[in-house]
Amino acid sequence: MLLPASSELDNLVVVLVRTRNPLNIGAAARAMSNFGAHDLRLVNPYSVAFREARSAVGASDVLKRAEEFKTLAEAVADCAVVVGTTAGRKRTLQHPLRRLDQAGIELRRHLQTGRVAILFGSEKIGLTNNDLSHCHWLLTIPTQNDHISMNLGQAVAVCLYELARNRNDKRQSGAPAPERASAAANEQISQVLLEALAASGYIQPGSEAACENKVRRMVLRFGLDPEDARVFLGMIRQIVWRLRQGKR
Amino acid sequence: MLLPASSELDNLVVVLVRTRNPLNIGAAARAMSNFGAHDLRLVNPYSVAFREARSAVGASDVLKRAEEFKTLAEAVADCAVVVGTTAGRKRTLQHPLRRLDQAGIELRRHLQTGRVAILFGSEKIGLTNNDLSHCHWLLTIPTQNDHISMNLGQAVAVCLYELARNRNDKRQSGAPAPERASAAANEQISQVLLEALAASGYIQPGSEAACENKVRRMVLRFGLDPEDARVFLGMIRQIVWRLRQGKR
Repeated sequence: MLLPASSELDNLVVVLVRTRNPLNIGAAARAMSNFGAHDLRLVNPYSVAFREARSAVGASDVLKRAEEFKTLAEAVADCAVVVGTTAGRKRTLQHPLRRLDQAGIELRRHLQTGRVAILFGSEKIGLTNNDLSHCHWLLTIPTQNDHISMNLGQAVAVCLYELARNRNDKRQSGAPAPERASAAANEQISQVLLEALAASGYIQPGSEAACENKVRRMVLRFGLDPEDARVFLGMIRQIVWRLRQGKR
Repeated sequence: MLLPASSELDNLVVVLVRTRNPLNIGAAARAMSNFGAHDLRLVNPYSVAFREARSAVGASDVLKRAEEFKTLAEAVADCAVVVGTTAGRKRTLQHPLRRLDQAGIELRRHLQTGRVAILFGSEKIGLTNNDLSHCHWLLTIPTQNDHISMNLGQAVAVCLYELARNRNDKRQSGAPAPERASAAANEQISQVLLEALAASGYIQPGSEAACENKVRRMVLRFGLDPEDARVFLGMIRQIVWRLRQGKR
């Protein structure tokens, strides 16, 4: 039973954040090959692990072409939707949380119009609050209450299976989602807005990191389209310029 | 997001046949814990691998309770439905082949009325023709044409996810399947029928193994219910007795 060689999973980016085990990196790449996803990105992988996995005999094309990034912001810069994965019961979540089957429907809509990143955190601690601040929303694979934490390679395989499962069933995919601003555009807005907040005295000393996460999440919730993102960025830049003028 | 602690996956048996890699055995057990399946059976595992996996620190309850069998027939004796997994393009298949999503609907119907086994073959060669002769039908996970072969642990995870996904959605489950004879009952019929065929001169010397597989597959296709299995076994036993009488 074949899946079509070229597919909407061309727009899917799998991001592994601080993965430590080279076997898990290899397993993620293999599942991507199985289900027709190509774009693997790693943020600060345990570097020996990544080099070993990539240079291994029989490393897949996906793994050989995988790219390494220093920050999550850089890794998802060209993505219009960024979704984190979580077992979902560890902390108070500040994001909408969708079950994988519902998430699959939503993601297939977005894959028709732009690049979508799915983030997988490290084996030990998953995604940090800072990682999560880069996410539009979160998805969770429904598992048993007493065994919530999945193996990384298996979690990647299950997510990709769900996305590939009905991809040619238009009823399951729904209407294409409207185009969205890239993560890079949103991040630029967040950073300039933070400048404005800093310059205006809104940010208390010591609360910079928390404020950054808060602003980033809020900007993502705006769900800006590319044109609105351009206009809004211009507005805040102007505000920052004026604030700095006032200081001289 | 929780799944109910007790579920129809109580009736599911995962059978690993000649697995070599202890990590894969561990990964299969972990996925079973995640999705609420409990009954893991191993047929001729590479014995060091199984001992290592089972005695590992942190081995799951599923792994600790896993049972080892010398033959596949023994491993599935109490199961009413036996389904093999295959990448599906390696050989001429003599069984119905269902995509996982369709297979899931069918399996959920059977899980309501009896024990169901899903077989996973060895990492290198999968299930043999002899293994397949114990199967009612086969399932395949839809993958890319040029990357059909999945990692064992990931394949187990994807299959269990599909079974667990909609298990409380009655529309997706369909009506309970009618009760079926156990694999042990079917195997007994096959063996007695083979005796009859041998005694009757039907089986050519040298074709015993091929004939055994052929008979077993045919008997499974009968889809006997427990009562029919009992009656039919009585009939062939009588025939065997008569054939032997004639020889004296």
